[in-house]
Amino acid sequence: MTYCVGLRLRKGLVFMSDTRTNAGVDDIAQVCKMTSWEVPGERVFTVLSAGNLATTQTVISLIDERTKAPEERNPSILEAPSMFQAATIIGDLLREVVKSADPSGQSAGSTFGATLIFGGQIKGSSPRLFLIYPEGNFIEAGDDNPFFQAGETKYGRPILVRAWDDEMSFESAIKLLCVSFDSTIRANAGVDMPLDLQILKADDFRVSQSRRMERDDPYFREISQSWSDALGVALGGLPEFEF
Amino acid sequence: MTYCVGLRLRKGLVFMSDTRTNAGVDDIAQVCKMTSWEVPGERVFTVLSAGNLATTQTVISLIDERTKAPEERNPSILEAPSMFQAATIIGDLLREVVKSADPSGQSAGSTFGATLIFGGQIKGSSPRLFLIYPEGNFIEAGDDNPFFQAGETKYGRPILVRAWDDEMSFESAIKLLCVSFDSTIRANAGVDMPLDLQILKADDFRVSQSRRMERDDPYFREISQSWSDALGVALGGLPEFEF
Repeated sequence: MTYCVGLRLRKGLVFMSDTRTNAGVDDIAQVCKMTSWEVPGERVFTVLSAGNLATTQTVISLIDERTKAPEERNPSILEAPSMFQAATIIGDLLREVVKSADPSGQSAGSTFGATLIFGGQIKGSSPRLFLIYPEGNFIEAGDDNPFFQAGETKYGRPILVRAWDDEMSFESAIKLLCVSFDSTIRANAGVDMPLDLQILKADDFRVSQSRRMERDDPYFREISQSWSDALGVALGGLPEFEF
Repeated sequence: MTYCVGLRLRKGLVFMSDTRTNAGVDDIAQVCKMTSWEVPGERVFTVLSAGNLATTQTVISLIDERTKAPEERNPSILEAPSMFQAATIIGDLLREVVKSADPSGQSAGSTFGATLIFGGQIKGSSPRLFLIYPEGNFIEAGDDNPFFQAGETKYGRPILVRAWDDEMSFESAIKLLCVSFDSTIRANAGVDMPLDLQILKADDFRVSQSRRMERDDPYFREISQSWSDALGVALGGLPEFEF
């Protein structure tokens, strides 16, 4: 399993992903699911990946190769004129990779399927955030759906739905994501520390901040421990039921 | 979909279930998923059901018929010497019903599968709570797993895991369940109001309290509205992340 979130704020984009991959509970490993490409001052992209690891690594490698060999005919996201075009390139790559492993059933239900969260900014337009499906098509975050989750999305969703705010600071967004990830990690053994974290500030056109939170990260541990107490207080403050 | 929870407290058992049933999002209806049997002063049982509605209604009807025709050979839960025996009777019934609809694949993955939360008390022993699988086998709640959920379990789980407390009052438990159900209802259109709610106080040997919360229930609406604010305050009180 996996848990990845991309958040769209007025100030920019925030990404967080776990690092556990598994082929059965008896076969777990650690892998980074967050990859970025930048042309400093001009464009920046980040991809979070969930699903079949062979598929996602192949897609990332293909994107990577294309960015390094611009003379070839294949379109590179570093030359795409817009975020939409870049998302289309990545979606097409994803579809091809899934299809090559599983010619019959290229779909969300396929063993070889994967879902990508793709965000970034190209000079001249705003930061944009997309969710790319295994079929290669995608949707974009907007005011009504300001974030995307991939992988084990359910445990960590209620707090995002309730507490997300367009105007929040990057620091508050990271706090919110830590709570969401902690709820998920507690419930699903297929999601685990360390966590990768990244900020793309609007109009920064580079990875503004990048951090790995290790298993013993003091901030994450404090959030994890304090949140149960804070919830207890919050619950205590709600009106009591009466028969 | 469905969302049902059975909670084991030191003071007794608490049950809550939603009432939405659907065969596709374009075919929804309302149905009660909570059924009780009692021999006042001697024993009380409650079943919450999730899964194929034809299966669960048949199981409930069969349990019901047996309780009304005790002279027949079939074992009735009203005559079972223990909660374990009663759970076995219900598990056997469930297995038979699932099997009769789907002789090939009687399993959790079957279209005709269903999961039951079964709790109650028989004079001479403590209240006990079970989760009965479509295969007819079951597990019992204990100190380490003090509650069972069935149906859409994930959205509402983190708050239960963090805030459940063995010693909590029935009123606080209902408040906790309202928060858990509200998170689930907001996220899954297959779970909806009204909610059925029931208390089996230890050594009461009857349904101690029973209530339906309608869509416009003022208490539930207050919890739903206040909880977002309370979470905001709780989040605000946690230490801020610093780069």
